[in-house]
Amino acid sequence: MGGELSSLLAPYGVAVVGAGPASGSVGGEILRNLVRCGHSGPLYAVNPKYDEVAGVPCMPSVDRLPDFVDLAILAVPRDAVLRIVDACGGRGIRNLIIVTAGFKESGREGAELEDALRHLIARHRLRVIGPNCMGILRRTGEVQLNASFSRWFPEGGNIAFISQSGSLGETLLECFAEAGLGVSLFVNLGNRAGLTEDDFLAELADDPSCGAVFLYLESFANPAAFRRLVEDMAPRKPVVVLKAGRTEAGAAAVASHTGSLASSDAIVDAFLRQSGALRVTTVQETLTALRALERRVLPKGRRTLVLTNAGGAGILAADACERAGLDVPRLSEDVQDALRSVLVPEAGTGNPVDLLATAGARAYEAAIDIGLREADAAVVIFRPPLVLPDPPVAVADAVISAASRWPDKPVVVSTLSEQSTEITERFHAARLPVFAMPETAVEALSVLARASLVQKRQTEDVPVSYSVATAQRVIRDARRETRIGLTFSEGATLLSAYGIGVCASRYVGAAEDLRAAVAGMRFPLAAKLDSPQLLHRVEENAVALDLKDPGDVKRAVERLLRSPVAAALPDARVLVQEMQRGRELILGVKRDGAFGPVVMFGIGGTYVEAFHDVAFAVAPLTQRDAISMVSSIRAARLLGAFRGQPAVDLGALTRALVALGQLALDVRDIEEIDVNPLFADAENLTAVDVLVRLSSPVPRDRGGESAAETE
Amino acid sequence: MGGELSSLLAPYGVAVVGAGPASGSVGGEILRNLVRCGHSGPLYAVNPKYDEVAGVPCMPSVDRLPDFVDLAILAVPRDAVLRIVDACGGRGIRNLIIVTAGFKESGREGAELEDALRHLIARHRLRVIGPNCMGILRRTGEVQLNASFSRWFPEGGNIAFISQSGSLGETLLECFAEAGLGVSLFVNLGNRAGLTEDDFLAELADDPSCGAVFLYLESFANPAAFRRLVEDMAPRKPVVVLKAGRTEAGAAAVASHTGSLASSDAIVDAFLRQSGALRVTTVQETLTALRALERRVLPKGRRTLVLTNAGGAGILAADACERAGLDVPRLSEDVQDALRSVLVPEAGTGNPVDLLATAGARAYEAAIDIGLREADAAVVIFRPPLVLPDPPVAVADAVISAASRWPDKPVVVSTLSEQSTEITERFHAARLPVFAMPETAVEALSVLARASLVQKRQTEDVPVSYSVATAQRVIRDARRETRIGLTFSEGATLLSAYGIGVCASRYVGAAEDLRAAVAGMRFPLAAKLDSPQLLHRVEENAVALDLKDPGDVKRAVERLLRSPVAAALPDARVLVQEMQRGRELILGVKRDGAFGPVVMFGIGGTYVEAFHDVAFAVAPLTQRDAISMVSSIRAARLLGAFRGQPAVDLGALTRALVALGQLALDVRDIEEIDVNPLFADAENLTAVDVLVRLSSPVPRDRGGESAAETE
Repeated sequence: MGGELSSLLAPYGVAVVGAGPASGSVGGEILRNLVRCGHSGPLYAVNPKYDEVAGVPCMPSVDRLPDFVDLAILAVPRDAVLRIVDACGGRGIRNLIIVTAGFKESGREGAELEDALRHLIARHRLRVIGPNCMGILRRTGEVQLNASFSRWFPEGGNIAFISQSGSLGETLLECFAEAGLGVSLFVNLGNRAGLTEDDFLAELADDPSCGAVFLYLESFANPAAFRRLVEDMAPRKPVVVLKAGRTEAGAAAVASHTGSLASSDAIVDAFLRQSGALRVTTVQETLTALRALERRVLPKGRRTLVLTNAGGAGILAADACERAGLDVPRLSEDVQDALRSVLVPEAGTGNPVDLLATAGARAYEAAIDIGLREADAAVVIFRPPLVLPDPPVAVADAVISAASRWPDKPVVVSTLSEQSTEITERFHAARLPVFAMPETAVEALSVLARASLVQKRQTEDVPVSYSVATAQRVIRDARRETRIGLTFSEGATLLSAYGIGVCASRYVGAAEDLRAAVAGMRFPLAAKLDSPQLLHRVEENAVALDLKDPGDVKRAVERLLRSPVAAALPDARVLVQEMQRGRELILGVKRDGAFGPVVMFGIGGTYVEAFHDVAFAVAPLTQRDAISMVSSIRAARLLGAFRGQPAVDLGALTRALVALGQLALDVRDIEEIDVNPLFADAENLTAVDVLVRLSSPVPRDRGGESAAETE
Repeated sequence: MGGELSSLLAPYGVAVVGAGPASGSVGGEILRNLVRCGHSGPLYAVNPKYDEVAGVPCMPSVDRLPDFVDLAILAVPRDAVLRIVDACGGRGIRNLIIVTAGFKESGREGAELEDALRHLIARHRLRVIGPNCMGILRRTGEVQLNASFSRWFPEGGNIAFISQSGSLGETLLECFAEAGLGVSLFVNLGNRAGLTEDDFLAELADDPSCGAVFLYLESFANPAAFRRLVEDMAPRKPVVVLKAGRTEAGAAAVASHTGSLASSDAIVDAFLRQSGALRVTTVQETLTALRALERRVLPKGRRTLVLTNAGGAGILAADACERAGLDVPRLSEDVQDALRSVLVPEAGTGNPVDLLATAGARAYEAAIDIGLREADAAVVIFRPPLVLPDPPVAVADAVISAASRWPDKPVVVSTLSEQSTEITERFHAARLPVFAMPETAVEALSVLARASLVQKRQTEDVPVSYSVATAQRVIRDARRETRIGLTFSEGATLLSAYGIGVCASRYVGAAEDLRAAVAGMRFPLAAKLDSPQLLHRVEENAVALDLKDPGDVKRAVERLLRSPVAAALPDARVLVQEMQRGRELILGVKRDGAFGPVVMFGIGGTYVEAFHDVAFAVAPLTQRDAISMVSSIRAARLLGAFRGQPAVDLGALTRALVALGQLALDVRDIEEIDVNPLFADAENLTAVDVLVRLSSPVPRDRGGESAAETE
């Protein structure tokens, strides 16, 4: 506690402006929630029409509130909001929740009003949630606060839930209650005119009442800030993110829903993975992930023991493991012998371990104890059969007891029944995640496996020095000529300044003695037209390959200079290069409206064009990000030794990806760079072509990382 | 009714052999279930120890049962089973349910007992379910039968549920009850020593009490029979299949669980798609699919309207549509204008249509009516907000009323709450599929879209005549020499007999006048060593490509004949072919232990090796199966016009795939054929190499399709 937001999250005096006694009054609902939740400090309503609302004293205006009110909640008509915010600021009330809607989400007029609101917030240095929000809920050892119109005041627990959407947030709170998940904080951000998810993440980092964070987001207020905060927090407290608007169709809906700028989903995916957040896709997956994380025992590896008294369910669980990337390894003969010594002869001991319907408490306990010797985690399926010597709770207790002896190995349970019984209660109480379906139990385990990888992450970055000044000089020269394209030679200078090798090349003229010009170069050669206005050389037929001798070169140079493209580009020159060998790769960086520079990687060649097999990462890239990019493409194995070609130098490749991202961060004029192709072999990376496009020369209001602010 | 199994499914007199009064007696449980379920005919127990069990008369032996007993249920010790089955047969009781376990699933001794049981079944021409099964449940207008030890006697309904597993079957019945799904039949097949899923499918085809079939299977008793039955039934009654053991890990579990032979999952996937079954992967997806199919309104296309009063949930639904391959198209300006005329100005009209929290019955009804003009189906999200002028049931009724005006367009509902309320009851009663989560509602819609494609399928096959006799003669000649490999020339004869073009080629000798031998052939040529023992030509370095003139050819032929491979193969000859151009493809057929011949298709070349981008189909292939194979590979676009090459002749390609499957069906000695590479262009398909492997010459007990029987 005691963070920046402590007086907002644990206020003393609270006032609801616009509260009325009518049942349809949102302010009245909020006031009644405040009364009911057991808030310990004084409460006020503000409304000129009443002296009292819901048993709470009512003041005619904000000015009349006593000094110790440190949080005001505004549920007033839209056109009164600015005036009241100003009054609160004047009165020294710095914490506000603005419930009122009709701002940015409702069109141009509302957007202008929101701009004015932002100015007021800055002027009075206010901490404002909203507008267009539902409010906050807080339950900790000391604080009980329902400062919202949510019908749900969830159980206390260690999840902090930050939701951009109000209605979905309330829905999820209801689902949390059904799933037995408790929260220490719920906040609905609404339009984020003041506080954003980042302010709350900063507050939660050291909040002992928060064990895990869940965010529902439709866009990121400030991706770079979000990433820094999550990178810091995720290894200690899991951060689960449900990011909506993940696809084209969804993105259209986001744009019309909150006016946010949506980004291509592949970038969001990369960004969240880089940050260390655990992305979930559906409401159901959200609940599963949060329940899995309650006990916070993370597996050391992927080896999964499946233990069942119902054969078919064991198979479904093993199937689900395979789909989720978890292994269900056959147990060793030693362990199987140990299992056989405690189980009935008909039991299956390979893995899944099929205990058969007759298995009682002793069989379960022994099988978990023995099986976990060779596994990192267990899925235990227990459906009480028709006939069983032990009472079902005895079996549950045996499972709990065995699990407690393996404090480093998660055990998740499936009961094959949606109904809550004494058994599920038992597992709940012991904090063993328990689910009806075996596939859901496996999904829970796979979330834990992902969380474990985040926990093990290390910051390993070696500082590299780049020649930033050289790169900036190249851009300045181009800017001076009001160009947005660079020549090959300028592009090559940029890459070299960031440590990326470029193929040796020379400009030649038609009148030149070509034999002399190419002396010392290794045939075969390639010749290309080059001009800062020529952005698609191959498509424009401005390349000649496989030139075997000076005669070939001469003919190619003449053809290129006589070509229609050259005629249209008076500054076009011809460039001659040595042909390269090795694996053909594509590297690139593009500035995204929301996330800033995004680095791209793929393997070149005809087929990749058909497969769209590329990976992304948001700059800055760590070495780990670059490795994860390279290994995530489907054809990654082509980078190893393949068909007689040696393995590519992966160290050089990942360094190049990191450098490309940094180049675009350092030089904000760069809109995009395509390094295509780049040839890689065991020793070298050699860029053969590079196209650079700068941002439009008309200066725009953008500023690198802060341009990522999407609001 | 009145099918083959009518006296089994609607018996008059029923006896439970082995029933006892103890609470742990499985036979006793079955008897009590029979009493409780309201079976209208006479009941008997058979047990020498008692005169009466559970109020039912008890006979000392099967022989003492009256003549009108037409179903006996055996819950006796394993070693008594054969004797009692024989007695039932002798007594004329032809319908048996054998609950007793300890047969094939429990090892060699049990397997031998099961073989003996099969002989008895054949001898007495019995209809037997089991052994190792739970029994059957039947609820129709006329029949109420619980001839099982299931604790659940589900509600009547129109789903017929066939389960290979007992415990999972009972679990699913419990889930059905929670999901409000009723069944007309549940049968647990157990070890399938007598009746299999196919017998029940045949019975259900014309059973008016069955509207949809759901199967849980770990293997197929007879894939070919299954496919014929499902192909016939699926366009009228949806067939949903949960096939477990879908992955390597799962498959290992299946093998140890029921002793079944598992097949690679890609083949199962292709097989079910070809059959017209709707495959589901998890228990949850099963329930969603069956609930979706209850109303049986199938969409004509993929255009989906998303309608919501909670913006965030609408976005999640749109995201889920995109993932499921459903479109959420932007509505036309005309339709948006119509929506604007009935909705509040702040409503979103693009799609998702965001009605906002204030939307009442009129807004919902009008928006569905207007929106469905431009969509094939709707996802309607309705979460009763805090304040609403209409009571929530009025909104539900409005949705139901609008949906009823579009009888051809499915409407699925999400309420954003797991709790069953008056609203969900209303939707249930109107048979509108209703789910808590928007993603589940979308999943339901996607099942309906798949079912719609099956319903629209047509049998379109044009009879083709192949030269079966020619193919058989080639094999006979090879068999005579006890070979399992064929020469290129023999392989070419097989392909030609089935209408697949093969590249022109000639055998040449070293001593020959090569200039004369290759006269009339188009250079460049290729030369290959050929021998029926040489199954991997390229790997053995037995190919020379790009021979530009007769001199090249001569040198290549000499090199090949002097090579170590040739030295090891005294029958090796050299083959000369014209080099081919076009797209490089791979075709093949392999005989699978469970499914018989499986046809494979892929695009050749380096990268595909890395991508494993291949498709399968089980023979016989329809033209539609072949088209679906070709279009399902990820790089399918490479078959169209690409990088200056014209589009491949898809008609010829699909005919070749159909033919290859038929060849392996017609000639059962064929174990596998690889046609690799085959070159395709706009006019021709030309096989350049073909390798054929026959089954081991020692005659085995196998018989084509019937070899697919996995038991």
